[in-house]
Parts: sequence; structure tokens; C-alpha cells
Amino acid sequence: MGEGAVRSRRGRSGGGAARRAERTAGNFETAPTIQRNIPDFDLLSDETLEIIEANAETVLEEIGVNFVNNPAALDRWREAGADVQGERVHIPRGLARQLCATAPARFTQHARNPARNVEIGGKGLVLAPVYGPPFVRDAAGGRRYATMEDFRAFVKLGHMSRWLQHSGGTVCEPTDLPVNKRHFDMLMAHMTLTDRPFMGSVTEPSRAQDSVDMCGILFGEEFVQQNTVMTSLININSPLTFDDTMMGALEVYAANNQACIVSPFIVGGAMAPVSVVGTLTQVLTEVMAGIAYAQLVRPGAPVIFGAFVTSIDMNSGAPTFGTPEASQILYGAGQLARRMNLPFRSGGSLCGSKLPDAQAAYETANTLNAALLGGVNFMLHSCGWLEGGLVSSFEKFVMDADQLGALHKMAAGVAADENAQAMDAIREVGPGGHYLGCAHTQANYKSAFWRTELLDYKPFETWDEEGARDTQTLASERVATLLARHEAPPLDPGIAEALADYVARRKASMEDAFM
Amino acid sequence: MGEGAVRSRRGRSGGGAARRAERTAGNFETAPTIQRNIPDFDLLSDETLEIIEANAETVLEEIGVNFVNNPAALDRWREAGADVQGERVHIPRGLARQLCATAPARFTQHARNPARNVEIGGKGLVLAPVYGPPFVRDAAGGRRYATMEDFRAFVKLGHMSRWLQHSGGTVCEPTDLPVNKRHFDMLMAHMTLTDRPFMGSVTEPSRAQDSVDMCGILFGEEFVQQNTVMTSLININSPLTFDDTMMGALEVYAANNQACIVSPFIVGGAMAPVSVVGTLTQVLTEVMAGIAYAQLVRPGAPVIFGAFVTSIDMNSGAPTFGTPEASQILYGAGQLARRMNLPFRSGGSLCGSKLPDAQAAYETANTLNAALLGGVNFMLHSCGWLEGGLVSSFEKFVMDADQLGALHKMAAGVAADENAQAMDAIREVGPGGHYLGCAHTQANYKSAFWRTELLDYKPFETWDEEGARDTQTLASERVATLLARHEAPPLDPGIAEALADYVARRKASMEDAFM
Repeated sequence: MGEGAVRSRRGRSGGGAARRAERTAGNFETAPTIQRNIPDFDLLSDETLEIIEANAETVLEEIGVNFVNNPAALDRWREAGADVQGERVHIPRGLARQLCATAPARFTQHARNPARNVEIGGKGLVLAPVYGPPFVRDAAGGRRYATMEDFRAFVKLGHMSRWLQHSGGTVCEPTDLPVNKRHFDMLMAHMTLTDRPFMGSVTEPSRAQDSVDMCGILFGEEFVQQNTVMTSLININSPLTFDDTMMGALEVYAANNQACIVSPFIVGGAMAPVSVVGTLTQVLTEVMAGIAYAQLVRPGAPVIFGAFVTSIDMNSGAPTFGTPEASQILYGAGQLARRMNLPFRSGGSLCGSKLPDAQAAYETANTLNAALLGGVNFMLHSCGWLEGGLVSSFEKFVMDADQLGALHKMAAGVAADENAQAMDAIREVGPGGHYLGCAHTQANYKSAFWRTELLDYKPFETWDEEGARDTQTLASERVATLLARHEAPPLDPGIAEALADYVARRKASMEDAFM
Repeated sequence: MGEGAVRSRRGRSGGGAARRAERTAGNFETAPTIQRNIPDFDLLSDETLEIIEANAETVLEEIGVNFVNNPAALDRWREAGADVQGERVHIPRGLARQLCATAPARFTQHARNPARNVEIGGKGLVLAPVYGPPFVRDAAGGRRYATMEDFRAFVKLGHMSRWLQHSGGTVCEPTDLPVNKRHFDMLMAHMTLTDRPFMGSVTEPSRAQDSVDMCGILFGEEFVQQNTVMTSLININSPLTFDDTMMGALEVYAANNQACIVSPFIVGGAMAPVSVVGTLTQVLTEVMAGIAYAQLVRPGAPVIFGAFVTSIDMNSGAPTFGTPEASQILYGAGQLARRMNLPFRSGGSLCGSKLPDAQAAYETANTLNAALLGGVNFMLHSCGWLEGGLVSSFEKFVMDADQLGALHKMAAGVAADENAQAMDAIREVGPGGHYLGCAHTQANYKSAFWRTELLDYKPFETWDEEGARDTQTLASERVATLLARHEAPPLDPGIAEALADYVARRKASMEDAFM
């Protein structure tokens, strides 16, 4: 572990100092990883799940998967016992599942502030923001290409939300920076503007290596080799194709003990069959092949069973979100992941709407509800997603984040102890009485109900006099307030300098690239 | 059965004629009662449910419930074995539950068009629109007191929605008509502008009797005595109070074999304890007492276990909707109802927002999702509710109704037959291929995915050129289209005349009352 990191970590481990630092940073208390104290909703029958599992083995063996431009991967598969024909890998029944068994059922992702560490797997639920959009939108500026300034603003908003445990990765794509250098600035934002865990770059294997190297500076090199400090998104080119860029990034991360979300990216009807069970068969096939491959690279490397599946509008071909089929697939994928004893990832604030309006909220709430009950462990895109993932919305970020507080409350389950039974209150109040003043209410009201930090419950007349603001307008005001209050959590100056030096040196070593 | 009704019913029973009539009426195909082919979500443990049940018996016996201004009710309870002290009825452990056992687990509510009959109970889910608001809102006219013209418009919108099976009751309160006469016009609207099942008046026992008498004209008197043709909403004055108006209406309906939804109306923290388990204890107590009383009036009378419970904003005292606590109570109430083998009713499009904006949609979707998975059999307020039930919203009516289509799809569950497994498609397409053109997609795409009739999935540029419409704007246009296309389904002229005569005679017999 680098000396700077040791100092930095020790400096923040004192409770009093940490609390002072938090207050100084104008920050909220952060809710810890959600532990779901509620049952999972098992939509599919065991019989259906067994059909899917049997069919996935058939696909792996008889149809196979392609590992493209990746001779080393083909060698690994051959050695493991697969039948490799050109770039096509036929995996004998049972082999992929057997290889997946070395993946941990749960793991800790460390943050530079140990109080922000997250547990991924089991009954845990970790919330991370929107990932990937090239555009941003806000009420004042409309829709426009995202910049690095926007990126920093979203990282700040995430840091200011008490309900997110994770800073995410590409909260928007900073299109004003060269393609081959922007990952440095993105990582610096996650490393300096927040002290929460984050994701690494996956757009080139060399950028994954940069991510690992920068984490070596932030956490100490030994610490990184012994612990997981990044959880990064490896998409599969569905159907059944593993390209060299994504697999190259996976190889870097797995070799360095860093976590990969192995995630089919599927628009149903285009990249998978139009049926739920057919799509789940393909999802399981792809995830098993991808996770098995990560285990071939390094047995025991942490992974997450990912599924990003939308349906399609068969009229326009546009992807749709928050639909019944997407929920069905989410529930089924969660069941399949649990049967493999693997952490499960799915989406959160997914929607197709162009605006943070009612359509966006219906679609988002449908997805959030399914994700909670479907047993998601790592929820990417849990807030801020708009327009089918083309846009990161400032207003929707804080709107969705407010709803995530409701998820925390739902996940906590229902207490049934003597206080929760409230028999004394029922006796005290009796028929026709009123509970507001009774002793039980006075003792419990502060924590009894989820409280919004955004939505309006004022009387109509008050609301009308105050300008009859809709949700987007309220959200715009909250975005401005949060950004104004953000302060970066303290970082050891030696580490900050070392990170800046690394970035300057690496940037100077390459020409700008814009494609 | 009256001859007119016989003729009317026979005339519409021919399939070809019915289909022609439907086309002529510019109507959509109506989806039948949803049969939920999915598991229920059992949030609470059996242990917690047993605690609630035991505590409810304690409340019934030791605290008791009040039947106000209702000596006949007290007599009935005394005869049944309760300990009556003044207006307080103490019900010995087990007696209420035993009385409830004569209530049917499921029943048919008949419509004047037999094709529109609904099954209430079991795995069925019947959707009925918003009930009760004194105001209406639309984008053009803003918020205003509701009129009879608005009422008719909502009945027409309901008739035009393929996803609703039920026309509901007080879709808004026609405040321009005398309080003591408006039920006649409301019933006439449900009887003439649609041929779906509907609800009766509950605001006075005499108005319940008018409802029964008018159904006697519409369906035939014998038919009404032998069949259930109305499902009406009996609210309990929580905590633990049964007023004479509501109980008077219940007595009329139960005596005539008509269905009552026995429904505590609770703002948690005000009319019940601030805890979920305490509130559920009170809900169960009240429902058991109410349903037991209906069975005392007429053993076997159809009833529904109702629960309308919201949480409260402890700052303003305003009721809140779509919150985690409301969902927890909905899930728990559903479990309690199933353990009593009774049909279950809860809310649908509940929200606190003043506008049909993102807040409204988050809150509504949270409630709709919980209602579907919580096993609701009769969903009142399934569309159109706004501003905590003060407002019926035209736009939100069609927005919510569109989401109800998604509920239908979710409820249908997931097929796993050979076609759904789609192995031929996966073989045909293979790694790197595209599913849009494959045989399985061509054969299945029309029914594969839920299709919105409202939401926007166009490319950004098209959407922008067309005016960048938000959901409310799209909904305004849909409201206008549907209202313009509405045609009343045919009704026997003799019946129509008899109904008009009855209403004219009854109205002439009373002075206008406005309070």
C-alpha cells in the first residue's frame, strides 16, 4: 500500500474527524448499502427456470459463442476443454456453470473513505447513477452534448444524495474532451469530488490499465491487488458475441482482482428473440460464458451477473423502457442469478421519454419497483437516465434519487415488535378518536414515514400562490441548491499531486483522438 | 326479470350483432377481467400476520367498535352474541371471523351487456376508475368544480378504454346538481353511456334504495334479487366507527344481495397508528366487523375486503400517496384478505401531486405495481385520480388507463412453451446476427410486446419537430379524440323511458338540497 494512501486512510478512520469532515463538506449522512429485509419476488416457476437453464447449456454447446479478435481467449477456452472452431467457442454442457462456481457470491468494493465501502451480493442493494449518455438536459438549457463540466456536476449531485452509495462511472460522456484522454478526467472527478466507490474505464484495455494504475496511487498498489476498488461495466455484443475491446478490459480488471459486471445489452426483438423465455435463455448463455471467461483469467475474480434488456416498439424499432416485458425479464434474470449464487445487476431509472415528465416517471417507477423486488444487488442507472439512455437529466437525477429513498424504506421491511403493534395506541385512542396526539405517535412519528426531499404535498392554495410548480421545476431548484452546497471531501495533497502527475504524463504521451 | 330487460339482454347476446354494435359504437375491444397468472407478493411473514390477527381479535373483544345511531344494528349484534354497551359493540374472539365465513370468496357482478360481466375474487383483477373528487382538471381549463357534464365525459372515457372492465361510481362529484338528486343523473350516465358494470349511491340509505330500484328497471327486479349488479363503496369512519349513513346504505345493498366494499378510510398517523402493523391491525378489525355485520343483515351477501390507507406528511398533516408505507399496508392487507378467503380491494392511481406530472406518475406507478403484485381483485381509482383525491384529471385518466394495459400484460405471466423458448430463432440467428427478420420474430411480433396507446417513442428529431409534446399534451389530444368517438351502446327504448320516468317522478317528490 502506498504511504500516501496509508496516511490518507488512517486520517479518515477517526470517527470524530470523519464526522467533522462530513459536516464541513456540506454533505448529508449517507445511507449504507441497503440490506433487503423483504422476500424476493419469484415471477417464474422453477420449471420454467429449469427449461431456461437446460436450453442455455444447449446453446453454449451446440451453437456456441464468438470471441472476436482474441487468440488468447480462444487458447484459454481450448485449454479449459471447449471445442473452438475459428472464433466460435462451443462449451460442453456444464463446463461454463462449473467455471462460474469460483466467482464469489458477494464481495466488498472499497471506497477511499472506508465508511463508504459497499457490499455487493446477498441481500444487499447498491445504487449507482446513470451511465453512458452523450447528451445532457436541464430545464434552462434544454438538450445538448455533454461536457466535462456536466460530468463533474453529476458526480457532485451523486455525492450530495444520501440515497446513492456509489458514484458510478460514465455519468455522461464528456464529448468536449478527446476520446482517448477523457477517462483520465472522468476518473479524477470520481476520485476527488466524492469519496464513494466508482467504476473504471472499459473503452480500451489500456484505459482499464490506467484505471487500475490510478487506483494504485489512490489506494496503494498492494491494497488494489488484495481488494476490489472498482466495479466496471463489461457489455456483451448480443447475440452471443464477445468483442476484443470489452474482453480486453475484462482481462485487465479480472487479472487485477477488480470486479466486472458481465452484462448482455439487449433490445428484445433485435438482439434477442421476441419472447421473454427466449431472451432469458440468451441472457443466461451470454452471462455464463462471460463470467466463466473471467474465471479463466483469474479464478475467484469478483463478477456480477448483469442484464440490461429492453423491449422494442415494433412500429418504429425504438427501444422502450419500463414495459411489462422488461420487468418480466428483470425478475427472471434475478432468479437465474440467485440460482448461480452470484450478485445480480439490472437497471434503475430506465425510461424512453424525452422529458422528465409523467411518461419518464411511470417508466422509471415500473423499473425501480421491479428492481427492488427482483433482488437486484447493483443497480446501475438508478437515477438520471432519460430518453432511452441518450440523455443524462439533471432534474431527473434528483427526482429519481428522491424515489430511491422510498426504495430504502421498502427494502427495510415491516417491523412487528411490540412498539410496531401499537396496541397501547389503539387502546388509548379508541373508536372515533384521533391518533395525532397520542403517546405512540409522538414517540414514533419522526421515523414512521418516508419523507420526500422534493415532492409537493402543500395545500392547493399555498402551492398555487408559490407558482404552481411542477416536479421538474422543483427539481431544477434542488439541483442548483445541491450543486451550490457541494464541497469535495478532503484528499491527501500528496495523493492528489501524484494523480495529477500521472494524468499529465500519460496525456502528454499520446496524440488527441476524437473518434 | 322485467320483460324489457329480457328483450334487451336477448337482443345483445348474438355474437355477430354484438360485434356490429361494438364497431358502430366506435368502441375498442374490451379486455376481460384480468386473471393473474403470476404469484402474489407476500411481503409479511406468516408470524407477523398471525400477530395482526390475534391483536385484531383483542381489539374487537376488549375495545370494541361503535355502531352510531343504529339501534337495529345493535340488536343484530346482541342477538349474534356480542356484548353491546351503549353504542359500543364488543365482539367475542372468533365471532366476527366466524360470521365472515358466509361471505362468498368470489362473485359475478353482472353488466347489462352480459359480455361485460366481471368476476370479483380469486385471481381476478377488475379495474374501475377514480371515485369521489369534487374538482376536475384539464390542461385547457385548469382546476374547477366538477359538473354533471364532466361526470358524463368521464363515464364516456371509461367506456372507451379497453383496459377498464368497470364504469365505477362517483367518477367526479357533479356539484352543479342538488346533493339529494345528483345520484339519479349519475346512475343514468352509467346505465346509458356505457354497458359496463357500475356502483350504486351510498350517501343516504334512500339513495341506495333508488339505486336498487333503478337496477330493477334496467335488469328486471327478479334478476336483481338473484344476482349482483352493483358493487358499492362503504367507507368506515376510522378508527372503529360505523356511522348510520354508511351502514344504512350497506343494509340496503346487503339485503338486496348487492355487493359492498367494506373499506376503512385511513390516513395513517391520524386515523390509525403510525406503524404498519398497528394500522393493519385496525384495518383488519374494522373490515371484520363491517363484513360480519353485512353477513348478519343477509348471510351470503357478497362483500369485498377493502383497504384505503395512505400515510401522512408529518410536517403539513397532508395525506401522501405512492409511499413505501402505503405499499407495505397494501401488501399486508392483501395477505390478510386472502387468509379470510375474501375478495380484496385497494387503490390504483393514487397520488398527491396537483398536476399530471412526474410526481403524479411516480406515485401512481408505485401504487399500481403494489396493487398488481399485492393481489388486488377490485381496483378502485385505477385511473384519473389527482391531488389526493380532490381532483379527477382528464389527462391523467387516459395516461393511467394506458398503464393499466401494462398491468394486463404483467398479470398474464410468462409463457414457457416451445414457441416461447424460441430455440429455433436462436439457432437461426446465431452469434452476431439480428432477430428482426427471423421467422420466430415475424410470427410473434404482433403480440410479443405491450404497446402504449399514448406514450412517445419517436426519434428525438421527429418528436421535436412535432412540438416536443410532453405526456400531458399527448393525453389532452387523446381525451379529445376518445370523447369525439364515443357512442352510447344501444339500450332498449322501453327501459330508457322507464328509467327516465322513475327519475322524473322521484325528483319531483323532493325539494332541492344543496348541503
